[in-house]
Amino acid sequence: MSINEIATPRNGVDTATLFATLDAVKAQPEIARFQFRASNRWLSGTHNRGTVNGYFGAGQEFTREADFTFDADHPPVLVGQDRGPTPAELLLTALAACLTSGLANIAAARGIELEEVTSTVEGDINLMGILGLDDQVRNGYEAIRVVFHVKGDAEAEKLAALVEQSRRRSAVFDVITNGVPVTIDVATA
Amino acid sequence: MSINEIATPRNGVDTATLFATLDAVKAQPEIARFQFRASNRWLSGTHNRGTVNGYFGAGQEFTREADFTFDADHPPVLVGQDRGPTPAELLLTALAACLTSGLANIAAARGIELEEVTSTVEGDINLMGILGLDDQVRNGYEAIRVVFHVKGDAEAEKLAALVEQSRRRSAVFDVITNGVPVTIDVATA
Repeated sequence: MSINEIATPRNGVDTATLFATLDAVKAQPEIARFQFRASNRWLSGTHNRGTVNGYFGAGQEFTREADFTFDADHPPVLVGQDRGPTPAELLLTALAACLTSGLANIAAARGIELEEVTSTVEGDINLMGILGLDDQVRNGYEAIRVVFHVKGDAEAEKLAALVEQSRRRSAVFDVITNGVPVTIDVATA
Repeated sequence: MSINEIATPRNGVDTATLFATLDAVKAQPEIARFQFRASNRWLSGTHNRGTVNGYFGAGQEFTREADFTFDADHPPVLVGQDRGPTPAELLLTALAACLTSGLANIAAARGIELEEVTSTVEGDINLMGILGLDDQVRNGYEAIRVVFHVKGDAEAEKLAALVEQSRRRSAVFDVITNGVPVTIDVATA
């Protein structure tokens, strides 16, 4: 790849910055330690609002100009009022977003111009679990299926390889497939 | 619990409907099979947009009046432009939302009036993993910590028990702690 090509953002990805980031982390691995955060406030019934803003990374605290907020609720068939997606749908959204962001970075690094990337995610869940009606049924999804449609200036095999490499390096895919320890504390003061 | 109490929504939860749902599922377990879905479209760089609407459940297809949409992006320090939270932050948002929705339902079923429920979620992640710079580092979070603050008309022990029961029945907590099989297919036509 020529210097000229590296300096040109591809697919909206600033590849010069991307490679500079990789070099910076190689030189100083401790800047790779990040902490992401979210907060949530109950509003009424199953309706609540999540907020995302500050995070720690690259050795410092960051604050965005404005909060990102996300209402969540249950649909009426699950005793809510559809004032937002279900939390289980937010999880599927996070998975598709992670795979797509990664795919765009990988395509840029490989010099592939993307034309269109869409995906759908389906998750099967048996509510006998969360309703406490059958101890043999898990609470969460039994299976999740993702289908990507990728168009770009490379042969089908190379476009498919973008999805595979994104899967291999996806934070959310890793968490959802392998699990992670979660501690929950309560303050009732 | 008297009929009068059951007919009164608590905390915005329609407990009569909640108990009717439990009875309906007990009588006809197949209505507990749900499928939730999300779709995603790449916009530019690490910026993409997720959409949530239709789902299958209680033996039928449901469509909301309008789509729920969620932009995701990376921050500038990760070669994005902060046009949305990172997918990894969306995952934390889903976790807090699921625990909170469940807690409100459980409080209503137990006749506890909630005054305030807030929570914070932190996730530690070492980007050496997703940057492909250290095979010993996982891609996803190494640990996630949730802290709930609950105020309501019950003693501290009973309020804390709401969080514990919600954890025991949370779909998203189950997926994030235990993992779930995810298949990814690609169509490049």
